[in-house]
Amino acid sequence: MTDNRALVQTFIESLDQRDWNTWRELMSEDVVYEVPQSRERIRGRDRYEQFNREYPGNWNLVAKVIISDEDNGVVWFDWLIDSKSEGDAMAFFEFDNGRIATITDFWPEPFDPPTGREHLTERW
Amino acid sequence: MTDNRALVQTFIESLDQRDWNTWRELMSEDVVYEVPQSRERIRGRDRYEQFNREYPGNWNLVAKVIISDEDNGVVWFDWLIDSKSEGDAMAFFEFDNGRIATITDFWPEPFDPPTGREHLTERW
Repeated sequence: MTDNRALVQTFIESLDQRDWNTWRELMSEDVVYEVPQSRERIRGRDRYEQFNREYPGNWNLVAKVIISDEDNGVVWFDWLIDSKSEGDAMAFFEFDNGRIATITDFWPEPFDPPTGREHLTERW
Repeated sequence: MTDNRALVQTFIESLDQRDWNTWRELMSEDVVYEVPQSRERIRGRDRYEQFNREYPGNWNLVAKVIISDEDNGVVWFDWLIDSKSEGDAMAFFEFDNGRIATITDFWPEPFDPPTGREHLTERW
C-alpha cells in the first residue's frame, strides 16, 4: 500500500520534471492511458511517453492529494502553465505487480454555478 | 482505513437512495462541501442536505472506484439521469473523528480531442 502511494508520487514528480527514465520504469510496457472526457486511449508505454514529451506548453504538475490501496490509486493535482495555476485535475491508477497498469485522467473545466441554489452556497 | 472506505461507500449509496437519515450521520455538523469548478461552497450539514434534496432531476450515483486512507478518501462514480449514464464524476473526502469533514466534488464535461495527437490515440 505504501509502495503504491510512492509509485503515484514518483509518477507525478518525475512527469513534472520530465525525468523520462524514472517515469517510464513505473509503468508496464503495455500500460493503457485513457481520457474519458474526449474518449481517447493510448496503448503502450512508448506511445504514452511520446504523448507527454510532445504535450505543448510549459506545464507543471503539483500533487495535492494522493490516496492508494492494493489495487487502485489516485492523485489530485494542480496543473500550471508558465507557473500559473490552471486548475485541478486527477489521475486514477490500477496497479499490477508493482507497476502502473492503467491511468485514467480527468480534466474538469470551470463552469458557471447553476441557478436556484444561491440560497445555500457562497462563492470564492 | 477500512472504516473510512465503508464511510465513503455508505455516503454514495445512501445519497443515491435518498436515505437522508443514514447519510447525514456520516458527516460532521459543520461539514464543508466545495465545487472548485464553479467556486461554490456550502457550509454545514443541514444546508448540504437541503442542497441534495432540492437537486433537480431523477439522478442516481453508482460507485466505480473507492479508495481511502486514514485522512483522505475518494469515490469515482457514474452519474445517471433517468437511468442513463451522463458521465464520470468524483468526490474527495477528508475525515475527522470517524466522520466526513469536507467533500470536494468534480464534474468533468466531455470535450473534443485536441488536434495534433491523433498519431498516438485511438477513440472509443
